[in-house]
Amino acid sequence: LSVPQLEELAAEVRELIIDTVSVTGGHLAANLGVVELTIALLYVFDPPADRVVWDVSHQGYAWKILTGRRDRMDTLRQMDGLSGFLKRSESDYDAFGAGHAGTALSAALGMAAARDCRGGDESVIAVLGDAAAGCGIALEALNNVASTTNRAIVILNDNEMSIDANVGALSRSFGRLLTSRRYNHWKRAVEKTAMKMKMGIFRNTYHRIEEAIKGMFLRSPIFEELGLRYVGPVDGHDLETLINALSIARLYERPLLLHVATQKGRGYSFAEEAPQKWHGTSCFHVETGTATAAPSTQPTYSAVFGDVMIRLADEDERVVAITAAMCSNTGLSGFASKYPKRLFDVGISEEHAAIFAAGLAADGYRPFFAVYSTFSQRVVDCIIHDVCLQKLPVVFCLDRAGVVGDDGPTHHGVFDIALLRAVPNLVIMQPRDEAELARMLRTALSGDSPAVIRYPRGTGPGVSVPETIDPLPLGRAEVLRPGKDVWLWALGDMVPTAMQTAALLDGQDLVAGVVDARFVRPLDEALLLEQAAGATIVTLENGTRVAGFGSAVQECLADNGVSAAVLRCGWPDAFVPQGKPAQLLEKFGLTPEALAAQINVHHEQVANGS
Amino acid sequence: LSVPQLEELAAEVRELIIDTVSVTGGHLAANLGVVELTIALLYVFDPPADRVVWDVSHQGYAWKILTGRRDRMDTLRQMDGLSGFLKRSESDYDAFGAGHAGTALSAALGMAAARDCRGGDESVIAVLGDAAAGCGIALEALNNVASTTNRAIVILNDNEMSIDANVGALSRSFGRLLTSRRYNHWKRAVEKTAMKMKMGIFRNTYHRIEEAIKGMFLRSPIFEELGLRYVGPVDGHDLETLINALSIARLYERPLLLHVATQKGRGYSFAEEAPQKWHGTSCFHVETGTATAAPSTQPTYSAVFGDVMIRLADEDERVVAITAAMCSNTGLSGFASKYPKRLFDVGISEEHAAIFAAGLAADGYRPFFAVYSTFSQRVVDCIIHDVCLQKLPVVFCLDRAGVVGDDGPTHHGVFDIALLRAVPNLVIMQPRDEAELARMLRTALSGDSPAVIRYPRGTGPGVSVPETIDPLPLGRAEVLRPGKDVWLWALGDMVPTAMQTAALLDGQDLVAGVVDARFVRPLDEALLLEQAAGATIVTLENGTRVAGFGSAVQECLADNGVSAAVLRCGWPDAFVPQGKPAQLLEKFGLTPEALAAQINVHHEQVANGS
Repeated sequence: LSVPQLEELAAEVRELIIDTVSVTGGHLAANLGVVELTIALLYVFDPPADRVVWDVSHQGYAWKILTGRRDRMDTLRQMDGLSGFLKRSESDYDAFGAGHAGTALSAALGMAAARDCRGGDESVIAVLGDAAAGCGIALEALNNVASTTNRAIVILNDNEMSIDANVGALSRSFGRLLTSRRYNHWKRAVEKTAMKMKMGIFRNTYHRIEEAIKGMFLRSPIFEELGLRYVGPVDGHDLETLINALSIARLYERPLLLHVATQKGRGYSFAEEAPQKWHGTSCFHVETGTATAAPSTQPTYSAVFGDVMIRLADEDERVVAITAAMCSNTGLSGFASKYPKRLFDVGISEEHAAIFAAGLAADGYRPFFAVYSTFSQRVVDCIIHDVCLQKLPVVFCLDRAGVVGDDGPTHHGVFDIALLRAVPNLVIMQPRDEAELARMLRTALSGDSPAVIRYPRGTGPGVSVPETIDPLPLGRAEVLRPGKDVWLWALGDMVPTAMQTAALLDGQDLVAGVVDARFVRPLDEALLLEQAAGATIVTLENGTRVAGFGSAVQECLADNGVSAAVLRCGWPDAFVPQGKPAQLLEKFGLTPEALAAQINVHHEQVANGS
Repeated sequence: LSVPQLEELAAEVRELIIDTVSVTGGHLAANLGVVELTIALLYVFDPPADRVVWDVSHQGYAWKILTGRRDRMDTLRQMDGLSGFLKRSESDYDAFGAGHAGTALSAALGMAAARDCRGGDESVIAVLGDAAAGCGIALEALNNVASTTNRAIVILNDNEMSIDANVGALSRSFGRLLTSRRYNHWKRAVEKTAMKMKMGIFRNTYHRIEEAIKGMFLRSPIFEELGLRYVGPVDGHDLETLINALSIARLYERPLLLHVATQKGRGYSFAEEAPQKWHGTSCFHVETGTATAAPSTQPTYSAVFGDVMIRLADEDERVVAITAAMCSNTGLSGFASKYPKRLFDVGISEEHAAIFAAGLAADGYRPFFAVYSTFSQRVVDCIIHDVCLQKLPVVFCLDRAGVVGDDGPTHHGVFDIALLRAVPNLVIMQPRDEAELARMLRTALSGDSPAVIRYPRGTGPGVSVPETIDPLPLGRAEVLRPGKDVWLWALGDMVPTAMQTAALLDGQDLVAGVVDARFVRPLDEALLLEQAAGATIVTLENGTRVAGFGSAVQECLADNGVSAAVLRCGWPDAFVPQGKPAQLLEKFGLTPEALAAQINVHHEQVANGS
């Protein structure tokens, strides 16, 4: 295809992306930004033989469209449909899947090492966003490029923002490169030169051309010091320039970093104007850019969290908030406006955030680190080694705990309880509603222990936060419904399900009580032991049933010499696929009807067995 | 004190460190390298008001000696004695504890932010080793310095090695700075200038002096790009130079990095000559540098692992090994010699290592990543998101699993089972002896799943690896001793304890069988259910009893409707302190005698309860 034909293709792909996302929801702005880059990569390289690894991979829609999945784009992010991320099991073209940031270069270096071991000749390319380049894993990988291989291509896809505006010295450094007057001065000249270049067959020619370009482009001392040849910045929406630059990169025999400037939301005016808002979107009208569904007037858990944080900060000077590039998504925008000096956005650097919080706590502050449950998996060691071993009162506010829906297994927050409940000194809580979230934040602030508060994506039952926010008694559960044969110990957002299940069981001649467990650690041992005498204990959690809250309940009984078989209800020992939460609950037997049936069978089995 | 007096002090401190470590064992080379730096820090700054955060903090012996703990140095690393690391609960001077690398700057920035919030004036200093500066957390922190505070001092303690020789582009970059001819040319002149400087009371004077020095020292583009003023390198054993440089740094109103060149093992000839060997040492004769105790002729688990890896690599070209700066300590030196191109040392970059392994596995290789259990806590998300979600056959070989002894809670590997047993697709094993370790490595290689093999520090029972290494049947335990009333399910190094415990129980009229569980996942469910009918199940593991192996056994019974109270024996819900393993087993009731008594009580309680 000629360049004009490729440009036509880009327009088509862009249209398909916009149409698709308008119906399915998903990541829009980032995908519109890399259409030309994707086309150029497929034009110059030969995947799947050549390995292209996309960091985070939420920008893979054009890639999917152009690698045989065009016809299935309408299933994007739907149950059993295409993933919103790249996925090895979906296509050979997806060299490596991801949903967390910063992993692409490490994976690509593994593939480069594999190639070098077997004496292969394929290209290995990692496409990194500029925000992800500040992530520790990506930096570790950058530090390792030169010692690992002589042939690797790093593409720095620089759109000057993560989900929120970028943070950190590196992104400022990139920005300086982009806006340099010298660059702007030479840009046109270089592009003209590049336009005239024909890609011949002699490597020496490439090198001469490359050397000619070298002097005209900027140098990045950081990358050069790291042993990468820096080329750029190039216009990421100019296909001819991109193709030329990638053609040079393909044959270069030293690790090379190509700095590509792209625009988030490119080609869709609404997204160009507010790329942050259009990072991830729900369904919308293409013509107007307005949401298809009326926005909920009920505040999300994130919003409630943010509001309560402001109230706590009003009262207590020690309260500070920390986010890793997720200020708005975790509900902290209001806090940031009111207390800009007490809000720390450290960029996509969760580990730094956690230890930074520990440092603040060590010197008398009360840091609340708001982070998605799935991303908190990165800070397990920090929680153990830096926070809990020193018993520093850092509060980890785990947003999006439980299944998140369409984003699927990379983003479900189902492991946090299992990962953290063995950590000494840690308090772990989950509220059943918004008011209880407020009380748990207060509880964490009143105490002197490290704490985790987990809460789900989206809205809760809609219980408003009272004027006065009292702390909860530590480790005390609350009985919500009296029982006899069965006691349902439910955690957080599973409490309403438990209430409905209990109502169903009533009709089946089983008197079932419901307990809002509140605390995973410390567990309300006294209440549990009292209830376990003569009743079946059932646990319900929006988390994995392996090693989770139910397991803690079972352990507590065993530790007290109570022979029991607790029925632990939660997600199974498998990665939970994408799908609407309601679909997933249905599929995995976590609806009140399915639970009631399962409880009946279990109750009978245990009764017969003992 | 005058500089000559400080030099005398340095000599005394050095002598005390050597004498202490010769008796207690511990980190020697790194401690000898920072004696002058420690003295200069205490001379120029005013801790505990000024906050000095030492990375990894295994180099804190001089610090302890000079901050009121001189008289207790003989208790170093002993049960109830001084920690081998800095520890907040031990002294106000220990601003932040650590045993894992790369955390100091993040913590220090937290303290700087706390100071800035409250409008304080104290200095905050982070001392980083050059190897730790390649660690992702440290790099995230470096990227965040300039956006966090105007006043922070980073000291890069550059001894040109981690435990093994350094890896990565950054350390080469540091090395270039150290060896630059320009530096050597100007070094003397600068030092003379510095010697003449008097530290007056006018800030302007400092700034003029500082500017004068600036031109003579080198520049580091990396640090300057990151927004840190780079000063150095300075001789880390020249007290006058150090004091001058730190005095300048103290008043500097921009983040500053002071590059200090130190020599590992300084002042003890044996350690100077072989700093790697003397990184950590057991007891030795000061005069001769020879070990006090005769070296064991029995190979450690690490050594057996390394030997088996060579055998597997001989047979299978896909086998590659990965280490994060721990090639020799994990037993991979022989492998590195024989297969240098199949051994990847990525420096202190565990996360990169894990995802790099995933990349290798994605392209057909069989990577074995050898890492201490405690450091594997850093790769939990990589194991979930990069390895297991994609079901890539990476094998994590967790050395030093279980309590490690003198190094204490930062290094005990007691959490790995609890952290990992909820991860889908993962196989988790622990061998009872060396031969079974070999078989487990084979099992992992023969299968197509991600796998974890954990094994303890030190030597095993001494069972030699046979000529032919057969894989184990997946998820099959082995009965080692017949039983009736009680079945002891023991994992790995607890199998011998279980055998002794069972023998004791025999004499107490309880017929106890012993099972070598082998697999935490998948568990031998059939065998367990068979035995649980009519017998008490007891589990034994060298790991936390919360959410660990025993919890998996308990879950399995409950899932099959068996009402039981499994007695789970392992480490309690608390951080296990330092001490000899035998002392710790005694203290926490994990000797055969204590276990037998506990089992008797539990058996009776359960029998009466049901």
